[in-house]
This record gives sequence, structure tokens and C-alpha cells, in this order.
Amino acid sequence: MQAEIITIGDEILIGQIVDSNSAWMATQLNAIGIKVKQITSISDDANHILKALKAAESRADIVLITGGLGPTKDDITKKTMARYLGSKKMVLHGPTLEVVKKIFSKYKAPILQVNIDQAKVPDNCEVLLNDQGTAPCMLFRKNEKVFISMPGVPYEMMNLMNTKVIPILKKDYDLPAIYHQTILTAGVGESFLAEELKDIEGALPPHIKLAYLPKLGSVRLRLSTVTSANDDVREELDTYINQILEKIPNYWVAKEDIPIEKAILNLMQAKNLSLSVAESCTGGTLSQMITQHAGCSAVFAGGGIVYSYEMKTKLLGVKPDTLEKFGAVSEETILEMAKGAIKNFDTDYAIAVSGIAGPDGGTEDKPVGTVWIAVANKENTIAKKFTFGNKRLQNIERSAMAAFNMLFRKLKEDLG
Amino acid sequence: MQAEIITIGDEILIGQIVDSNSAWMATQLNAIGIKVKQITSISDDANHILKALKAAESRADIVLITGGLGPTKDDITKKTMARYLGSKKMVLHGPTLEVVKKIFSKYKAPILQVNIDQAKVPDNCEVLLNDQGTAPCMLFRKNEKVFISMPGVPYEMMNLMNTKVIPILKKDYDLPAIYHQTILTAGVGESFLAEELKDIEGALPPHIKLAYLPKLGSVRLRLSTVTSANDDVREELDTYINQILEKIPNYWVAKEDIPIEKAILNLMQAKNLSLSVAESCTGGTLSQMITQHAGCSAVFAGGGIVYSYEMKTKLLGVKPDTLEKFGAVSEETILEMAKGAIKNFDTDYAIAVSGIAGPDGGTEDKPVGTVWIAVANKENTIAKKFTFGNKRLQNIERSAMAAFNMLFRKLKEDLG
Repeated sequence: MQAEIITIGDEILIGQIVDSNSAWMATQLNAIGIKVKQITSISDDANHILKALKAAESRADIVLITGGLGPTKDDITKKTMARYLGSKKMVLHGPTLEVVKKIFSKYKAPILQVNIDQAKVPDNCEVLLNDQGTAPCMLFRKNEKVFISMPGVPYEMMNLMNTKVIPILKKDYDLPAIYHQTILTAGVGESFLAEELKDIEGALPPHIKLAYLPKLGSVRLRLSTVTSANDDVREELDTYINQILEKIPNYWVAKEDIPIEKAILNLMQAKNLSLSVAESCTGGTLSQMITQHAGCSAVFAGGGIVYSYEMKTKLLGVKPDTLEKFGAVSEETILEMAKGAIKNFDTDYAIAVSGIAGPDGGTEDKPVGTVWIAVANKENTIAKKFTFGNKRLQNIERSAMAAFNMLFRKLKEDLG
Repeated sequence: MQAEIITIGDEILIGQIVDSNSAWMATQLNAIGIKVKQITSISDDANHILKALKAAESRADIVLITGGLGPTKDDITKKTMARYLGSKKMVLHGPTLEVVKKIFSKYKAPILQVNIDQAKVPDNCEVLLNDQGTAPCMLFRKNEKVFISMPGVPYEMMNLMNTKVIPILKKDYDLPAIYHQTILTAGVGESFLAEELKDIEGALPPHIKLAYLPKLGSVRLRLSTVTSANDDVREELDTYINQILEKIPNYWVAKEDIPIEKAILNLMQAKNLSLSVAESCTGGTLSQMITQHAGCSAVFAGGGIVYSYEMKTKLLGVKPDTLEKFGAVSEETILEMAKGAIKNFDTDYAIAVSGIAGPDGGTEDKPVGTVWIAVANKENTIAKKFTFGNKRLQNIERSAMAAFNMLFRKLKEDLG
């Protein structure tokens, strides 16, 4: 079963907004065994919409459309859908009008004719009631194909997908089971992994695919399979997952699609361990990545952003002598920073990062991209020097990924 | 002049990553007067790639392709482009091979045949050297049309666009001159601004357009004009820019397209002022936003990520009594946090943020989304309570924006 997503709206094509709706919809469709063949973003232009609908119909069974349902002149999705699907007239949809009236009375706004017109729909569609906004969600059937037009407002679309669209698709189609399983790796590149996993990949049966999804400092490996629901495909996938894990014991971080800092939080929370940070060149990035995860306070105490020499001394007790003699980016300083965090912040583990993010501040000895990272527990501290590139934001991101990887490896070692 | 963007990669179609590249590319193309007609995301499938190329060619003058250029088996963009554009053979591209070798030697990784193969390109393309990664950027010309294939890794793509692709397009095509000028506002919504600026907007000449670009907590106003290069259009734009600034004196932050924390850094650096932070619920976000800007160390000393009660007491001297009696999210605590930062971190200004980001931790009195923010200098401290929503990441982002806006307003007041 294949679907296509068409997003309609000038704001995507001029780059004003990033189309995050499509990725979310694709995830939901994949989860019920519907493959997304193509995602197409087009402007509010009738001819272009008609062509996109025709092209999507030729490839897919299910066409999901978002956007272009607002009350203003430039929103023409509804009448263009009506034209494409051979509607005879527009009819007022009572329940939608009720929603429109309710919303306007809630915000005490005067209701205009354009708002009432929102509740008019093509006579040959089935309305899936949108109780969160004024734009109706419309389902059309044509031959064996289904077209569903939804508003582009993310929470309205998500609510409609969850409560109406997905249940209808599950009921109407005999869907195969699709399984994905993701392994997060850190510290090695895509081509190294591909070389390591060559034999396993070569021996995969045709219905199982391995994909490499690289990001700065980490690569996700995704095994996926489409099959009929009765097969023991999860078990089969597990076999290959285990083969991969065994092949790269020092590089895998998690057997699920989570970022590395979340894997660390899970591991530390299970062992009731606490964490603090001492960030110089990462400047809050480690903390920010950690604290985006709900519940992180069970593990994360906080830390110091020690950008200046004075802060390194005040918060972490780094000796002015050490800073003077070896500089802020040195093994001596990073060790004092990590040990200072353990002592002053009183946590089981600490990460310290100090480097030259750039673009300025490099020397011949310590070029931009030189970063020292240390990871400590109450007994011992390890420090490592990295040489990244000359781009500030990348150096920060790479430093954060390397620091998390070092902590993860140390935790694995310490916890056995 | 019309362009289309084709992004290739299963990871977009299964929703594993959000396609943010396309929006960025569209912005860059718009800035030089090239309209994006369609954005198409397709999988690593040769037939589908061929069809998408043909469809794009039929509509657009310029086709930009990203993704599918990795060293692994599932990456087939290069050979499919070669097939579509009638290449006769693959040839080794020396400069690309040098880049590949340099990258591998820098990371001390063994170079494999698949990596060397990265440097092979179709014989009929022009290579735009990608000096940031191992995948080549290839430009093909066919009749009057141009096809450019770029890696999907965002920073590689961005660097190629900035240094190679945009300059080539500007040289090859007779593009209209487009001027943009942006005003950053903070603290008020789009519809409020639209109402305030109604008269100015109504009086704009037809060749000047005002766009509202809202983000959480800020709205950018962009005036743009498309015209022949000789007109005194910059001066004309300036007149309207000044009218807008005069109309909204308490809401505009910058007359250029920079984020609010950068405007703060500029203002503070000019006056030789120092800044520290005390972050609880923002958990490093303020620091991370500040330290992404090169040269921030002239202003930013650092700060404390005080997630736990203990850290609030240790780093900022918040009294355990205050925390016990009023809680971490209270006026009393936030005032002590801000004053503690000024005192302990010895800076001219400090920001403190403490709130309930959620999803848990809310109470009837203090629901999720309750956030206290304080801004202090050495003489006085102001605190304000905000009530945001129930989404963790949004609450963090809104808190950061509100905190920066409070600091910016205080600086403006203090500095006159």
C-alpha cells in the first residue's frame, strides 16, 4: 500500500517554514504499514495542484493533502479538489459550522462570511470533523483510491490523523506489517560501519533492508522490513540486529531510535547515578541536549558554563597557575575541570569540555578545532584530545557528541 | 527564473528526518530572485529518481538535487544522474580524491575502496569542489537547463550553495535585483504588529512587500523589493524601515536579520558590559544560544545550570529556606538566583530563569508552563512571571526568548 503526501502553500516554497508535517505523517503511515512514495510541496496554484494530484494518483493508493484551506483568497485547495474530483456543488456542513461558531465565540471575534464559507464542502466528500479549527478535513474516494485533504496547522492535522485518518485507513485496507529497528552508533563513520557490516548486509534476505543515517558524530543503522502480518519478522529482524550488535560492540549505543544523551540518561537513571557538566567551548550545548528530555532531573544536577578563566576557577576550583601555565585548552586544565565538577557539584559522574571552537583564538600549537574532553567519576578521570575542523557550530556539536560518547563508554566499562 | 528541489533519501519518506535543507535552499534562491516551483522528496530508487528528474526538467530551469551521495549501496543518486544526463563513463576527479584522503588522514581512519570511489564522477559533469566532505557536488548542463547534485549533509550543502552554486547561478542567469531588509521584533505577536503597521503597509508602493515571519516569541518583519538594479531602491526601503521603527519603538530589537541574543551581545560589547546566566528550566539553552556566536566571550562569562535545589544553593547562594518555603519556581527564588549570579559570577548583568517546563511537575497553583524570569544589574533586579503552554520544548524556547527580551529592554532603559 502506497501513499503520497502533497503539501500546499507558498510559505514552504519560499523557505519561510520548514515542512515538519510531512515527516510526522510519514512516521504515522509507516507505523501502520503504508509506505510513502513521494512528498511534494507546491504553491497555492490551481493548475499545479491539479497536476500534482494527477501524478500522485498515478503512483499511490492514498493521497494525503495538507494546507491551503484557510479563509483567505490565496487558499484554493478546497475548490481545486472539488474540481479534480468532479464535485457538482458546495454544500454547508452543519457540524463544521458549529465548530466555526464555537471557536469565534470563544475568542469573542466577529464571524464573517468568509468564516461561514469555511463550513461549505464539496457535495461528494465525506467530512472528517475537525473540532480544533475552522478548516474542514475532506475525504474523497475515486475508483480504488482515496484523497484526504487536511489543514496544514500541525496540531489540527495531527489530531485528525490520530483520531480519524489512521483509523479509517486501517479499517479500509489490508495492511502489511512494517517493522523498523534502529541502532544508534557513535564515534565511527558511515563507511567504516559499512565495511564492518559488509558480510551481514550481503547476507540479508531481500525483504530486509539496512540503511545508514549519518549525523555529525553518530550514525544510525536502520533495519526495515515489509511483510505480511503473520510472519515471524520481528524475530527475524532481532537475529540480524543481534549480529550487528555483536560485530560492533564498541560503537553501538542504543537499540532504539533515541539520541545518545537519552541513552546515557536511561542507563544512569537505572543505576541511580547523578551527572554534572563543566562546559567551556560547548557553552551550554551538553546541558541543553540533556535537559530537553523530560525527567532528566532524576540524573542531571546541572553544572557550570565556565567560559572565562575566572569562572573556571570560581566554579570548579581550577588553579590560576594551571590556566596560566598550560592554558584553558590543555590536559592539565580539563582534568582539574572534571575533578572540580565531581567535587563541587557532588555528582557521581561529570563531563568537562574545553576547546577552541573558533573562528578565532587558534594558535600554531592549538589550532581552531582543538578540544580537550574529560569524563570523571569519584575514583578516576580520563581525558582525551580531539582535533576537529574550523567551523564553530560544528566544533561545538562534534565536541558534544564526542563527550557523550566518552561518557557512554566509561559508563559501560564501569558498570560492566 | 524557476527552480525545483529534489531531495533523495528513504530517511525523509519514512519520517526519520525532517527535510530542513529545502527550506534553507528556498530562502537562498528567493534572495537572488529565483522562485522555487516545487519541492519533491523521493526514495533511493532509480526509476523514481529518473521520473522526478524528467518532471522537474519539464517545469523548471534549475534543478537542485540533494542526498543519496554516500559511499554505501543504497546511495544511487550519482549513477542515476549519470544515466539521466547521458554520461559515458565515470572518471576519477583528482581534487575530490585529495579531499577524501585529507579527511581520512585527519581522522586517522583507513581509506577504503568505497571512499576512493566517492571521487569518481560522470565524465560530462562539472565538479563543484566539496572541501567539507567526501561526496562530490556535480553540475550538469542539458539544453538550457542546469542540474546540480549536492550532498544531503546540511553543512556541506550550505557551504556548497554559498560558495559555488549561488555565485554560478548569479553569473549564468540575468536575475532581477532583490533587496531585503529585516527588522527583528520581540515580545508581541504577528496580528498585533499587523494592526500597528496597517497604515504603513497600506501606503507601500506596489514593488515593495512587507512580510511577517513569526517564530516562537519573535516576529521578523521583512521588507523586500524586486526591481531593476539601478533604482534608488535601498534609500526608498530605508524610508519605510524608519517609519516602521518609529511606529513600534518598544518592540523592535534589531534592524538586521540577527537573533535577539546577538543584538544583546552587540549592544553589551559596545558598552563593555559583562553577562552571566543562572538557568534552571532553560537548562543551558540561554548559554547555548549565546555561545553559538563567535566573539561572545567579550561579553559572556558563563553561568550556572542549576537544575537541582543543591546547585541553586551551591552556585548562586539561594537560601534553602527560600526554596523550601516558596519553591524553586517563585518570585523569591528567582530574585535570589539573579542576585546570586551577579554576586558570585561578578558580572554587570545576569539573567535567571526558573520554571516548570513539563510535561510533569505542575501543580494547581503552578501549572506546567509557569516560568519566573529575572534580570539583574549590580543595582537592581526585575522579575516577571510568565505562563506558557504545556509543551516542554516550546516552554524552554519561549522562556529563552522572553528572558532575552527582558534583558534587551532593561539594557535599553539603563543605557538610555
